[in-house]
Amino acid sequence: MMPFPLTLPHVLERAGRLFREREIVSRMPDRSLHRYRYADFERRARALGGALQRLGLRRGDRVATLMWNHYAHLEAYFAVPCAGGVLHTLNLRLPHDDIAYIANHAADRFLIVDDVLLPLLERIRPHVKFERIIVVPFGGSAPTAGVESGAEDGVENGLENYEALIASSAPVAVPALAEEEPAGMCYTSGTTGRPKGVVYSHRAIVLHSFASALQDILGLSRSDTVCPVVPMFHVNAWGIPFSAIMVGAKLVLPGPHLDGESLLDLFEGEGVTLTAGVPTIWMSILKALEEQPSRWKLPEGLRMVVGGAAAPENMIRAFDRFGLRVVHGWGMTETTPVGTVSTVGPEAGALSEDERYALRARQGVPPPFFEVRAMTGDGEAPWDGRTMGELQVRGPWVAAAYHDAPDDAAKWTDDGWFRTEDVATIDARGYVKITDRIKDLVKSGGEWISSVDLENALMAHPDVAEAAVIAVPDEKWGERPLAVVVRKAG
Amino acid sequence: MMPFPLTLPHVLERAGRLFREREIVSRMPDRSLHRYRYADFERRARALGGALQRLGLRRGDRVATLMWNHYAHLEAYFAVPCAGGVLHTLNLRLPHDDIAYIANHAADRFLIVDDVLLPLLERIRPHVKFERIIVVPFGGSAPTAGVESGAEDGVENGLENYEALIASSAPVAVPALAEEEPAGMCYTSGTTGRPKGVVYSHRAIVLHSFASALQDILGLSRSDTVCPVVPMFHVNAWGIPFSAIMVGAKLVLPGPHLDGESLLDLFEGEGVTLTAGVPTIWMSILKALEEQPSRWKLPEGLRMVVGGAAAPENMIRAFDRFGLRVVHGWGMTETTPVGTVSTVGPEAGALSEDERYALRARQGVPPPFFEVRAMTGDGEAPWDGRTMGELQVRGPWVAAAYHDAPDDAAKWTDDGWFRTEDVATIDARGYVKITDRIKDLVKSGGEWISSVDLENALMAHPDVAEAAVIAVPDEKWGERPLAVVVRKAG
Repeated sequence: MMPFPLTLPHVLERAGRLFREREIVSRMPDRSLHRYRYADFERRARALGGALQRLGLRRGDRVATLMWNHYAHLEAYFAVPCAGGVLHTLNLRLPHDDIAYIANHAADRFLIVDDVLLPLLERIRPHVKFERIIVVPFGGSAPTAGVESGAEDGVENGLENYEALIASSAPVAVPALAEEEPAGMCYTSGTTGRPKGVVYSHRAIVLHSFASALQDILGLSRSDTVCPVVPMFHVNAWGIPFSAIMVGAKLVLPGPHLDGESLLDLFEGEGVTLTAGVPTIWMSILKALEEQPSRWKLPEGLRMVVGGAAAPENMIRAFDRFGLRVVHGWGMTETTPVGTVSTVGPEAGALSEDERYALRARQGVPPPFFEVRAMTGDGEAPWDGRTMGELQVRGPWVAAAYHDAPDDAAKWTDDGWFRTEDVATIDARGYVKITDRIKDLVKSGGEWISSVDLENALMAHPDVAEAAVIAVPDEKWGERPLAVVVRKAG
Repeated sequence: MMPFPLTLPHVLERAGRLFREREIVSRMPDRSLHRYRYADFERRARALGGALQRLGLRRGDRVATLMWNHYAHLEAYFAVPCAGGVLHTLNLRLPHDDIAYIANHAADRFLIVDDVLLPLLERIRPHVKFERIIVVPFGGSAPTAGVESGAEDGVENGLENYEALIASSAPVAVPALAEEEPAGMCYTSGTTGRPKGVVYSHRAIVLHSFASALQDILGLSRSDTVCPVVPMFHVNAWGIPFSAIMVGAKLVLPGPHLDGESLLDLFEGEGVTLTAGVPTIWMSILKALEEQPSRWKLPEGLRMVVGGAAAPENMIRAFDRFGLRVVHGWGMTETTPVGTVSTVGPEAGALSEDERYALRARQGVPPPFFEVRAMTGDGEAPWDGRTMGELQVRGPWVAAAYHDAPDDAAKWTDDGWFRTEDVATIDARGYVKITDRIKDLVKSGGEWISSVDLENALMAHPDVAEAAVIAVPDEKWGERPLAVVVRKAG
């Protein structure tokens, strides 16, 4: 068989060849819609790659982005890896000193930034050393200085204009990349210690795209219109920019307006068939729908992928009443990130309505080549849906190490699995249910008590608005759970 | 990222873990249905792998099969590669001396054969040297001698009983396989010269499975019930045994009864949602449906993948009248085999009915990581849907050489593409249309004339039953086409 590498230049070329007319729609800061075609996207991504090479990008160099979800960010997603660089998406919601730490730790040479985020950049800039800063005229306020001269004095205040840069650029000269070479990186901000970097190889991103696109996982096709609400600065928007472009879907990129009404307008206007984001976003959408139930006529069968935090079963039920199908998933920065997705298989027919919802509220089944196990003190937990253990995973899109962090080896087991620090059960059909974070478990009388299960039980009470369960020391039991409850108004 | 190999042992383990209860149904020679579960399949495949190892199978050894489509053949599909061997499916429809040549050329050490095919084996056996012959009691007539003794005298007439062999076997000891190692092989019988062997790596089979399963290609999910009518001795039944098991679909294996009525009974009885085979099979199904239009109530949305020869547009239209959706594809032994599939994308809405059928009658678009080009004497043909050139392909599941055949290097171009010897056009959306075989083209007055196009035009005439177009020498034009036509009865 041919030694054909799994690298992103193929995906970019395929996009430009097979799907020339397919649309990519971006909502701008002024709420207008920017539209262009895959053919434009491919041409501009190649030009950006060429421009970065002209500016001195070398194999493996990191290029940071500080951007919302829109066409130029998508261009960077492909331009940087196809030029041999590493796309490093900075999370603009992190504290300033964390962003600076991350950019420095990754040794980012270049930065591409939205003009509307320049105020944020100014806070960080004293603490970081980008060789070049390229500004996208996303809000219409980018410096207009070109880079034709190639000299620093052709640049306004050290900032180069993205459009001027790519207008004058030759297409990228794609190097012969091995599939194991790095293509991207993201930092994960754990609750303790400094953020840690995960480096994604071309191979990992490609295999993750194949697996995500499968019908039992996200089910992506070129007939879909996909709107990643999850930010492109957050674990590559769950890989959707890669997987959607690979299959040739229409992409709808929502820009900075992420309130419920704005998103519903966009879903309706562009005929979105699949969207993805965290529960907080969907709660604001649900609120908008409940307030104005007849305002939007949404595409039939619209699927909403929910991850990043558990989707409560009552949220899944609530959306079903509006004809929106929640698809629950789980993943981590360290897993590129799709790990499990809770689609329902042919067994659905044999289940009661309650059982089906309980299944959909689980985090779901792993795709091919993603392996899961729950480890107790006594070895692997049986797949009985009851026995809790630490969720450990492995596969070709799971991190084997953090970037430049040799002290973190304890995150991997001796036999090569990644320790998620989530506690889970796995049932007989392989459906994972995350019951807790290891450090949130309450160890009472030798037994583990899930703080999440207790919180969910409390929140199901009609008078409870919010509930949090913590462990408190106890003489007799070692620890006991303490519930902190906010009552509903009234 | 973890160095996790793309090998078949993962697929087998996943099948046994996630889809324990999913069914595999085989129709036996006496037309009874043999049913079991993925859990049984996995256990028995592991036992067969262990038995082969006990018999002396070494890494890379070829194990031949001479079998119909049924559970034991499926077991061999996974047992042999998971034991470190190479599954070599012998095509029982080839002339005896070709089968013997192929088995000898591949140096097959072991053979697994259906009892009902023993008469065929007897014709070949004097000319081949299998170290072990294992007989599957598929028709109920296998020798009953076990192999407990491990000695030749525990074997009847040199034949070992498959069931006795696996009943006493320890599970396979899966070696640490690299993804580039061989997992299977098939011989292609070109029209000239001796058959040539193509060796499939684990990596090629896994990537082919991912690509085939995509919604825009075959669209396989665990909710499907898949019936490969295409023989498992013919290019791995187009990879379906691997891809269907990977996604966890219910499998229906039709055994030796392949007439239209038998297949329709099976599709109806088992609720088949996807089937695959050559046009000849579908013509017999169409005939049965036309004769007894109300006899079968077939599953809604049943898709029939057609490949191996062009599916005429009128066949696609005819099946639509019965609610059966023909999905047209193209591939070769050298491409594992799926190369292009003609599903219709979002552009369908903008097309007239005739245009849609014309699109579906094309061979279709390539999946991700399968590249196509049409080469003329002047370089690559534009993707205009008109310019003909030799179809050349490349990708991770395309052969880079034939097995032990150094003289065949001319089948690959200097820049590494495989020459299909098919002539094709490619349109602006990447839809390939095979217009001819290179050697069937008529070169008249310096222009290529497609014999296939002429044949199709003739066959569209209501009075024509069959038509063949050949080239005849001509003084003025060099060559001219000659049509040989059979009139319809009456």
